[in-house]
Amino acid sequence: MDYTLIFGHKNPDTDAICSALAYADLKKRLGFQTKAVRLGEVSKETQFALDTFSIQPPELAAEKLAKNQDVILVDHNEHSQSIDSLEEGNILEVIDHHRISNFSSEQPVYFRTEPVGCTATILYKIYKEHGLEPDAAIAGLMLSAIISDTLLFKSPTSTEADHITASELSKLATVDMEAYGMELLKAGAGTENLDPTD
Amino acid sequence: MDYTLIFGHKNPDTDAICSALAYADLKKRLGFQTKAVRLGEVSKETQFALDTFSIQPPELAAEKLAKNQDVILVDHNEHSQSIDSLEEGNILEVIDHHRISNFSSEQPVYFRTEPVGCTATILYKIYKEHGLEPDAAIAGLMLSAIISDTLLFKSPTSTEADHITASELSKLATVDMEAYGMELLKAGAGTENLDPTD
Ligand SMILES: [Mn+2]
Ligand SMILES: [Mn+2]
Ligand SMILES: [Mn+2]
Ligand SMILES: [Mn+2]
Repeated sequence: MDYTLIFGHKNPDTDAICSALAYADLKKRLGFQTKAVRLGEVSKETQFALDTFSIQPPELAAEKLAKNQDVILVDHNEHSQSIDSLEEGNILEVIDHHRISNFSSEQPVYFRTEPVGCTATILYKIYKEHGLEPDAAIAGLMLSAIISDTLLFKSPTSTEADHITASELSKLATVDMEAYGMELLKAGAGTENLDPTD
Repeated sequence: MDYTLIFGHKNPDTDAICSALAYADLKKRLGFQTKAVRLGEVSKETQFALDTFSIQPPELAAEKLAKNQDVILVDHNEHSQSIDSLEEGNILEVIDHHRISNFSSEQPVYFRTEPVGCTATILYKIYKEHGLEPDAAIAGLMLSAIISDTLLFKSPTSTEADHITASELSKLATVDMEAYGMELLKAGAGTENLDPTD
């Protein structure tokens, strides 16, 4: 098992799943052996995004981390939100947009948090820093993560960077951002709660 | 006092001083009000670098941080290595290359550590991410920081990224990296300890 596992937090939301898939894609393109996994069930909203862009969900992670397993955390940095026995593994990187909660590392690591509305916004920046662009399907997943975390830019955590990034991703994914965004959020809300006229 | 203070750790080494000056330069060019300060005396080695590139040292910081003062930490992330009463201030960013030691933030922040030999190596990447380049004097200071932290690439913490970055910086600074590097390290060692024949 010489690949690095990449995962978001427990009770994964769309960002936790899609940012793991996107970062695994980028790392593979950069020559690293990586595998996205998830720490819980795929939500209806996330499944809608995966179906729209024809991407399989990540595998469910094993319950406990193997000793010395290399890992990359996305969309979280708190141990309590992460895989059980995280301390057995070796954290190589953290990419996140949440407050930092008592984080320590034994060695220097690549740790990057930015005060934006979604991890995928940071990942898009990292793609560009490497002179790369996500393909249409991965761009669609990253767009879905931003729409989900910012509630289509209506959340107080949404920033200009999220909006600009989402616009660029919607072009790469060739979807209409507003129309797709409403569909995605509706898929998450569950059809039974929706007014059939809107 | 509506500018952001940028500083390295107590007992500042050349990276702590020069990375504060370099990042203050970059932030100013990006439109932010910033001021580099230092948390201790300028070493002989650092003074040699400042003299070579005709840059004034940063001011000594006040003993205690003013309430709600915005700050950016470079070359450290541990509170114990930072300014007294750091908790009174508002940490906007951290750029560092050390292990992370129990770091917490109340809000999401821009926090970036990378496993390289010197903070200046990360800062050069950030200049480039903004499509910018340090001028000759700032490049000279950043080069000095890398030479100092990596002991001219002989330290076990030195990485390929440090070496490549230093080469590029030496061109911008128009100095010979090896010759200048030996002079810098000698200035730090103190002349009394040096063999006059080497
Ligand atoms: Mn999340
Ligand atoms: Mn998120
Ligand atoms: Mn230092
Ligand atoms: Mn340093």
